[in-house]
Amino acid sequence: MDPSFDRLAEALGRLPALGRRSAERAALALVSDRARLDELRAALEEASENVRLCTLCGAVTAARRNPCALCTDPARDTGILCVVEEPGDILALERAGGFTGRYHALHGRLSAARATGPAELRLRELAERVSSEHVREVVLALGTDVEGDATASYIVEMFRETGVAVTRLAFGLPADSGIRYSDPVTLHRAFQGRQSL
Amino acid sequence: MDPSFDRLAEALGRLPALGRRSAERAALALVSDRARLDELRAALEEASENVRLCTLCGAVTAARRNPCALCTDPARDTGILCVVEEPGDILALERAGGFTGRYHALHGRLSAARATGPAELRLRELAERVSSEHVREVVLALGTDVEGDATASYIVEMFRETGVAVTRLAFGLPADSGIRYSDPVTLHRAFQGRQSL
Repeated sequence: MDPSFDRLAEALGRLPALGRRSAERAALALVSDRARLDELRAALEEASENVRLCTLCGAVTAARRNPCALCTDPARDTGILCVVEEPGDILALERAGGFTGRYHALHGRLSAARATGPAELRLRELAERVSSEHVREVVLALGTDVEGDATASYIVEMFRETGVAVTRLAFGLPADSGIRYSDPVTLHRAFQGRQSL
Repeated sequence: MDPSFDRLAEALGRLPALGRRSAERAALALVSDRARLDELRAALEEASENVRLCTLCGAVTAARRNPCALCTDPARDTGILCVVEEPGDILALERAGGFTGRYHALHGRLSAARATGPAELRLRELAERVSSEHVREVVLALGTDVEGDATASYIVEMFRETGVAVTRLAFGLPADSGIRYSDPVTLHRAFQGRQSL
């Protein structure tokens, strides 16, 4: 429609989760609302100055604090490493509490649909950390769907001959849920994993 | 996770079509890839300088050309105004050719789900143009779903007592399609609108 507008729509369209039509809609929303456009510009500038990804775990961290606070906390156990898909997952696990090891964010998961292969994920970094930090156990905290399963299988393969234990968070019924509301796969897995009381 | 990162994710989350989780993913993608972040910053700056929405039709136009080229083209018929949802729709109709009137983009459509009411759309501007530009016919080129229908009904109501004709693009079978591939609603509407040969 207008070359400057098209460039904005294209730049937005390169973000994950924004298709061509929604990128155009987003560009239009920004052009119609100067305050929103300026807010995003300021946020990008601020993030560009202040935000980095921790070179060890891949979590979001302040530029002046890299490696991040969690990676440099001497109270955390270096022998056990919890692998997550996104940095946001670390926050959820820390809120749940109980885990005293360190984290490693893959920045995604294997996906045929989105053509995400092993090279797109932080898997090489994972192998290096496991070796250099003398990790005994890798705990997989991945999504419980096909792509999570594929990613888990791949990582199990990676460490098969190394003597490093690879575990995965338990499958089962979620808290505060009823049998009648659970899907068949969840019920099946909960049955398989039943524990004696 | 980090205040600057959170502000970026929030600014992105205010774009249409980006939920909280996808905004966080988009922010992460930008922070992980400086080139992409800089590209978006540059595109926003350029759009902020150069792009405006035409004060008449609501289409995207260069800042130095407002009203837009189409609105100021003396060869276009001012008596007939075609109402579309998004500026991008104008491009599609111009590509199809055959329409020589002018356009008016609503910037959306009535939607209960997204809480878009009449005040969010450019309907007041539509009424003003129809009156000041002496429009004889308003052609509705809206989507053919429930929200498009609701928007069409609302506009029909707006002009009921004014003597302005309100028409809507024909319903029917799309080009290059077979009966067996058409959904029941399309077939039903095509039957109702059948024409003698």
